[in-house]
Amino acid sequence: MEKGVKQRILEKGAEIIHQKGYYHTGIQEVLDAANVPKGSFYNYFNNKEDFGLQVIDYYVGQFDGMAGQILDNQSLPPLERVRKLLDSFIDLFRSKQYTLGCPIGNLGQEMGDLSEPFQKKLKWALDAMAGLYIRVLSEAQSRGDLPQGLDVRQTAFFLIASWHGALIRMKIERSPEPLEDHKNFFFNRIFKK
Amino acid sequence: MEKGVKQRILEKGAEIIHQKGYYHTGIQEVLDAANVPKGSFYNYFNNKEDFGLQVIDYYVGQFDGMAGQILDNQSLPPLERVRKLLDSFIDLFRSKQYTLGCPIGNLGQEMGDLSEPFQKKLKWALDAMAGLYIRVLSEAQSRGDLPQGLDVRQTAFFLIASWHGALIRMKIERSPEPLEDHKNFFFNRIFKK
Repeated sequence: MEKGVKQRILEKGAEIIHQKGYYHTGIQEVLDAANVPKGSFYNYFNNKEDFGLQVIDYYVGQFDGMAGQILDNQSLPPLERVRKLLDSFIDLFRSKQYTLGCPIGNLGQEMGDLSEPFQKKLKWALDAMAGLYIRVLSEAQSRGDLPQGLDVRQTAFFLIASWHGALIRMKIERSPEPLEDHKNFFFNRIFKK
Repeated sequence: MEKGVKQRILEKGAEIIHQKGYYHTGIQEVLDAANVPKGSFYNYFNNKEDFGLQVIDYYVGQFDGMAGQILDNQSLPPLERVRKLLDSFIDLFRSKQYTLGCPIGNLGQEMGDLSEPFQKKLKWALDAMAGLYIRVLSEAQSRGDLPQGLDVRQTAFFLIASWHGALIRMKIERSPEPLEDHKNFFFNRIFKK
């Protein structure tokens, strides 16, 4: 039961912060959405910042769940798993009418300059996300599916960063084109031997 | 004199919105920073939104000034001009301790989902920025400096979008590495014949 309440607060908080950003999200609206009385917030979180930082943990857990399942699927060649993951995200954003973007990218934009605890946590989150890509790209490279000269770590971080930028353009254009372009530049140019 | 006051409001507004985002910028602090009495704001702008949209025009004008001068410099080969522009931006962000990011990318992130007038204006801004790159990349391609199969329009938009994402990572890491990586992926992979 204890875990259930905290989980509900985190889930609703993650949803609202994804839509509105961190600053525009009020604790009270999160608690209302989670159907939890105000007093119990401080049983789980020291303050709004602590809550925000734990929401980042929650996002990374969500990413791990979705991406990990696809990227670790040994029945597909490693680069096909990357393609499948990007296609899954494109499907997800189509269902959201090309809004929202990546919550980690959004918070990086909003909070990267403004709060050192957020900055450190977001750096950890990027590292965690990149770790999944580094693993699958290394597997591809050792099979000979990627150029030997490609730096797998740099490629993983650039894949995520350029995806975040493509999501900004997706929001402005309300179109999947920036995400399709991103995928095509990686598969047709950067991954090409 | 009329033009002077409006220009001062736009300049200070552009500076403060770049630092804090649109929502967190108050009209009063812009007028205080510009040393302009409140009443005169409405001589130039219908409301805060109209002001924000005109600040976007101002940003595009700034970009045109800086980028246009470098990208139109006929004494350098076209791709060297692109490299020089990216290096100039890296120098600029170094002087800002790797904070701020691109004001158009920031507003795309903040406002892309929330306001249709901003969305339309930001789409126009992206198109305007891409136009400069399309021109110089076309020049490079017609000289044989780019692969013939490269879609110059897609490349221009992907260059800007992935730059915006690299800037998010720059803010999180407080480091030029994401910007250097961006440049290297374009010059060593995407532009490579």
